[in-house]
Amino acid sequence: MKPLILISNDDGYHAKGINSLIDMVSDFGEILVCAPESARSGFSTAFSATTPLRLKLRRKREGMNMWSCNGTPVDCVKLALSELCPRRPDIVIGGINHGDNASVNSHYSGTMGVVREGCMKYIPSVAFSLCDHRDEADFEPLRKYVRTILSGVLRDGLPKGVCLNVNFPLASEFKGIKACRMAHGTWGSEVVRARHPRGYDYFWLVGKYTNDEPEAEDTDNWALTHGYVAITPTTIDVTDYEMIDKIKGILRKS
Amino acid sequence: MKPLILISNDDGYHAKGINSLIDMVSDFGEILVCAPESARSGFSTAFSATTPLRLKLRRKREGMNMWSCNGTPVDCVKLALSELCPRRPDIVIGGINHGDNASVNSHYSGTMGVVREGCMKYIPSVAFSLCDHRDEADFEPLRKYVRTILSGVLRDGLPKGVCLNVNFPLASEFKGIKACRMAHGTWGSEVVRARHPRGYDYFWLVGKYTNDEPEAEDTDNWALTHGYVAITPTTIDVTDYEMIDKIKGILRKS
Repeated sequence: MKPLILISNDDGYHAKGINSLIDMVSDFGEILVCAPESARSGFSTAFSATTPLRLKLRRKREGMNMWSCNGTPVDCVKLALSELCPRRPDIVIGGINHGDNASVNSHYSGTMGVVREGCMKYIPSVAFSLCDHRDEADFEPLRKYVRTILSGVLRDGLPKGVCLNVNFPLASEFKGIKACRMAHGTWGSEVVRARHPRGYDYFWLVGKYTNDEPEAEDTDNWALTHGYVAITPTTIDVTDYEMIDKIKGILRKS
Repeated sequence: MKPLILISNDDGYHAKGINSLIDMVSDFGEILVCAPESARSGFSTAFSATTPLRLKLRRKREGMNMWSCNGTPVDCVKLALSELCPRRPDIVIGGINHGDNASVNSHYSGTMGVVREGCMKYIPSVAFSLCDHRDEADFEPLRKYVRTILSGVLRDGLPKGVCLNVNFPLASEFKGIKACRMAHGTWGSEVVRARHPRGYDYFWLVGKYTNDEPEAEDTDNWALTHGYVAITPTTIDVTDYEMIDKIKGILRKS
């Protein structure tokens, strides 16, 4: 039986990134897409606890069904697994995202939400993102790498509880692939105050990202700024094991 | 100068949990609350990229200002840090949540969103949650432990990039505190289909949680089901370092 590939994103089912991805991977197996009906950037691993969700079939052809959902990226995966998939998917793919999801952006990212949800269901899951926010971003240079990574993961799987966060620099050719750790970085100047015509203040969230360790060559941020594809293997288990021992020491003393 | 304590949650500024917390910690310092104007359970580390945000002063007394925000738990922290805090807070506290945030719920949790956001800003951050979803849950048994943990963190700080996820079992007395790792668990039966009066199907997300390693005594789920307070130190760095080496090996071979 052909592999079943579940695809979602956070930019919406109509985005160029997800449609480029479908085009790149269609011959690998049967494709099921369930993606938000409009943009859900910054939705992280959020799910809808109180919103009634709806599904709409948007496109259907031999080997490819595309659905949209009014919920979050995670909702899309949950609904697809429960209501749409003819069997358990062999892989969950998030993306291709318009904009990078390296460093702390991994936490905010709805694309990573897709992949975390797949991974929490013990399905091999991979996120692809390109450092280009534009609607018309060119995803074509990614094709070869996306296909190589997809065929590797379909062949070998991934360890339980580990997903891949793959980020591509904005370039027409890449220098290679680097397996990276997540950089420490911070967002600042995040709030812009504005004045509503009715006379009250409101706020927009924006901000500027700073890589707090620009010299660290083992990080995703470094790889991206130096022209490499960054693969950051990402865990669901977010325990800090060193700190467990420290706390145990404190508890014994008290 | 008295410590500045920034408090938020995902149940909303009116919830019993956050108000119990304020009462428990008010004498430690100056309190600034910025919490969602209504419930935001399951909002994870989401922020509002496209929604105009508003702040409302809800309550004000000597040493305590409480604001509400129409955004996510993370939005509350970002706006508080940028617009409301008279100085950098000494600690960010999330909670006390009505319902547990152990195991994979850590990823979905808006309470943990609060704390991740504080931690990503390099501020010591602690989440408190009680295994009781009810509006009228009794938080009083937690008082002693919340105060002990808060004074410890105010005194010693926390390592950069590590926050604490503290969960309390539903009990009138606790057997003690355990430093834990996050359990592997899964949500199943998550989708319930319903029929709208207008004749279309819609879906509610619900579900049943299963602890996939109930015998593992070093996990948060085990601690909670056996009457202990569970402290799970949680990292912002979600890199799987073992997997980096494996991928490097594969890349060298290919």
